[in-house]
Amino acid sequence: MLAQFHLQTSAHAQMIEITTELEKWIRSEGIDNGIMIVSSLHTTAGITVNENADPDVKTDFLRRLEEVYPWEHPKDMHMEGNTASHLKTSTVGHAQTLIISNGQLVLGTWQGVYFCEFDGPRNRKYTVKVIEG
Amino acid sequence: MLAQFHLQTSAHAQMIEITTELEKWIRSEGIDNGIMIVSSLHTTAGITVNENADPDVKTDFLRRLEEVYPWEHPKDMHMEGNTASHLKTSTVGHAQTLIISNGQLVLGTWQGVYFCEFDGPRNRKYTVKVIEG
Amino acid sequence: MLAQFHLQTSAHAQMIEITTELEKWIRSEGIDNGIMIVSSLHTTAGITVNENADPDVKTDFLRRLEEVYPWEHPKDMHMEGNTASHLKTSTVGHAQTLIISNGQLVLGTWQGVYFCEFDGPRNRKYTVKVIEG
Repeated sequence: MLAQFHLQTSAHAQMIEITTELEKWIRSEGIDNGIMIVSSLHTTAGITVNENADPDVKTDFLRRLEEVYPWEHPKDMHMEGNTASHLKTSTVGHAQTLIISNGQLVLGTWQGVYFCEFDGPRNRKYTVKVIEG
Repeated sequence: MLAQFHLQTSAHAQMIEITTELEKWIRSEGIDNGIMIVSSLHTTAGITVNENADPDVKTDFLRRLEEVYPWEHPKDMHMEGNTASHLKTSTVGHAQTLIISNGQLVLGTWQGVYFCEFDGPRNRKYTVKVIEG
Repeated sequence: MLAQFHLQTSAHAQMIEITTELEKWIRSEGIDNGIMIVSSLHTTAGITVNENADPDVKTDFLRRLEEVYPWEHPKDMHMEGNTASHLKTSTVGHAQTLIISNGQLVLGTWQGVYFCEFDGPRNRKYTVKVIEG
């Protein structure tokens, strides 16, 4: 099973939780058990699994990443000027693999799945693929 | 096939090799070929694959990560105070996908699978899922 | 389906695109749909998905990573002296999972798959495993 999702981001750097969309799709497809690959189709936006409770974690997370890979860098050669977002994407990962059991994602209490925008706002896409088993 | 493993970490930051536990489980389940997802169920502990020989690599690895994402940060807003461990978890990954061939994990000579504690010591859980094929 | 690929890197740090090799293999094996795990068999070389157009991205990417995890570090204990490459490998990931649809990798317009050398030049190996479905 394969599906493509769209989302519109609204900030330059942003973590948007997509757990609910993924779980809704799992139910709509009637999937019971297997694995799910969630893959960003971009080189300046990734996917990660992180805290779904305190929204301050997202703020801290994005600020800290920006400190490690600052937007402005005197030595960057890439003409588009978004080298930092490429590094952030490879750091969190362009994709994540999740486990599905009894029709639900196997996540810890505080885990949520996030689409990570690192060069927005933009129209974005991610692909979801399930292997049942 | 799905299983949940528990472990007790003993330090604030710690890399615990779990390769042997995973391979033992593969044998006990009689799995020959496929892939295995090993997934931490926490947002402050992850999974990575790294060197299994010189224990100094772990020491250096954790110290260097701490320098990049220091525990104390004047701008952090997250009340729990463990923002750094969230960043470390997304950096190494909450989960890894491994290949199984002829009843064994396909790993290089120096590769081992590690549970990475970034906010311990704690009781921790990880889930293992195999898709045969 | 399982295969092992070899490559010779030619620099200390280098990103080598392997998308074409992977797609050629998919065609030669007649794979239509599924997922593909591409896994480095080393602890000082990883796999990532990033921009396939402007070569300056690779230059910036490797320089920025080196600034975050510098080769020389006064506190490193690991005798081989390549601690930085271990951190870079876990940061980008030792492996990536890709989606295959209609005989092709599902990648965005600008996405390419890269073997990332962090302690070369060396002879390197990576394993590719496909689960069809």
